[in-house]
Amino acid sequence: MRGDGKIVVLSGGVGGAKLVHGLAQVIPPERLVVVVNTGDDFKHLGLRICPDLDTVTYTLAGLADPKRGWGRANETWNFMAALKQLGAEDWFNLGDRDLALHVQRMQRLAQGESLTEVTAGICRNLGISSALLPMSNDPVATIVETPDGPLAFQHYFVRDRCLPNVTGFRFDGIDRARANPALLHLFADCVVSAVIIAPSNPYVSVDPILALAEFRSALDAFCGPIVAVSPIIGRKAIRGPAAKMMQEMGVPPTVIGIAAHYQGTIDGLVIDKTDHAQADEVIQQRIDVRVEQTVMHTLEDRVMLARACLEFAGVLIRKGVR
Amino acid sequence: MRGDGKIVVLSGGVGGAKLVHGLAQVIPPERLVVVVNTGDDFKHLGLRICPDLDTVTYTLAGLADPKRGWGRANETWNFMAALKQLGAEDWFNLGDRDLALHVQRMQRLAQGESLTEVTAGICRNLGISSALLPMSNDPVATIVETPDGPLAFQHYFVRDRCLPNVTGFRFDGIDRARANPALLHLFADCVVSAVIIAPSNPYVSVDPILALAEFRSALDAFCGPIVAVSPIIGRKAIRGPAAKMMQEMGVPPTVIGIAAHYQGTIDGLVIDKTDHAQADEVIQQRIDVRVEQTVMHTLEDRVMLARACLEFAGVLIRKGVR
Repeated sequence: MRGDGKIVVLSGGVGGAKLVHGLAQVIPPERLVVVVNTGDDFKHLGLRICPDLDTVTYTLAGLADPKRGWGRANETWNFMAALKQLGAEDWFNLGDRDLALHVQRMQRLAQGESLTEVTAGICRNLGISSALLPMSNDPVATIVETPDGPLAFQHYFVRDRCLPNVTGFRFDGIDRARANPALLHLFADCVVSAVIIAPSNPYVSVDPILALAEFRSALDAFCGPIVAVSPIIGRKAIRGPAAKMMQEMGVPPTVIGIAAHYQGTIDGLVIDKTDHAQADEVIQQRIDVRVEQTVMHTLEDRVMLARACLEFAGVLIRKGVR
Repeated sequence: MRGDGKIVVLSGGVGGAKLVHGLAQVIPPERLVVVVNTGDDFKHLGLRICPDLDTVTYTLAGLADPKRGWGRANETWNFMAALKQLGAEDWFNLGDRDLALHVQRMQRLAQGESLTEVTAGICRNLGISSALLPMSNDPVATIVETPDGPLAFQHYFVRDRCLPNVTGFRFDGIDRARANPALLHLFADCVVSAVIIAPSNPYVSVDPILALAEFRSALDAFCGPIVAVSPIIGRKAIRGPAAKMMQEMGVPPTVIGIAAHYQGTIDGLVIDKTDHAQADEVIQQRIDVRVEQTVMHTLEDRVMLARACLEFAGVLIRKGVR
């Protein structure tokens, strides 16, 4: 792999953020470009909430809560308590410290800044030097289709705790949404060495990014390797509803199911040691496999997986996958 | 005084809120109408902040911080700490609990509710049954004139800690602002028994209300008593820059100065025992005087002053002041 090219990572929230954090430890900040899903974004209490962007931001800034999977460490909840007293909707928790980010984002967006500019400003102030790019500056809303009708993503995910059965997904606004121009420039300028799809939910974290037509075209024309890390380990997702969704969609919740989902997009799939027996079936789908420990409990785990992804991409370049 | 008429109180923040709180203890909630200054309101961090409305609201709801004079008791400040970390303006403190009110107000205003409707909704949820009426639903901005140019009120008051010399005031938007229709209706329907001007800053808390042309006309046509409580006690204001402003404007910071300021508007002035020697000079200005303890340390003090104001208004009705 070219030593100075950009590593573009497609990421959702928790799992993606962990791998991004690992990558940030092993490559110089100017080489790391994180493209973050904004399909989960929604307007709540008049604020623009960007759950995936926030999780990646807090993780890279070292501010993320280590257990909760979202929001900031050492958080307090007095805003929520007062909001409840005022009779407002309180199904979506916003911590007192976390709120500063949402209020600032709302203010800057209202002043005409793009989401990319707002995010860059926040990153600067939190000491993050890598590029965090929202997948688009335009609104895209992930809708979860259920037998009882469509649900806005956060209603499905938070309010209804992922309980409804899933029959499909759509991304409202995707046809009008332009992929982040800064991202497209990187591909147009041929400065991207590899694309890594983080171990995020394929349906609701990665697919919205891949559904942006201009980005899809850029990926189709891209001649470097595209590597994904399976979010499924031993028929389960570490966190979130990916496995449940796969089952409900009639897809086996395995690395084979993940490979099938990304077939035609990826050149390589990193799977966990637990799933090594399924490597051959993935390879039959013309996808290279690398077996690693993909569970990330510690910072060391994150770094090891990041290195493995980079090495794997390097191997694929030398093999001339494309 | 007619036993069932409305008592309309014109109020700013702290001092006004205390008297309003006293009145709320002694007359039924449906008789109490509080008209609150909104000239101090400003947009900050994209939120609409209404300092006087909030202080009156929190005081009536029993949530006000007893010492600080603004905001809520048992407050935490983690939002502010995080905001500072994000490099945002942090000269105006917003507590974590307090923020719930500002966020909800912003959301409701954005949805097209008037400030009066938003305030009524908040009051309902906090168990306040008296009517809290913002003086206007339209924006009015108090500007403090200084030798170095004009200052937005909160810049003068909070950011610059009232240090600049004051040469005058203006109320931007006052010509276009309509007085609160609900307030005008009360006068049109002749259901007001008396008007009480709370011990608030005459220049920046009461004058903006009196400067609303329609309300001024309603007061001019009103045939009941208008009673003010002096915010000046022994050449000082209990809180805030009233005395300093009077001196800088060349007005003696005394109850005589207050009487002169309100001459032509009020029929009676309640002054503190400390200032009893100046009663005659006030009476020479054709303003009746009642001497009371006007300092309100305890809830009992608030109630006593409230009763005194009501009795005084009753006496003036019987004397047929108008």
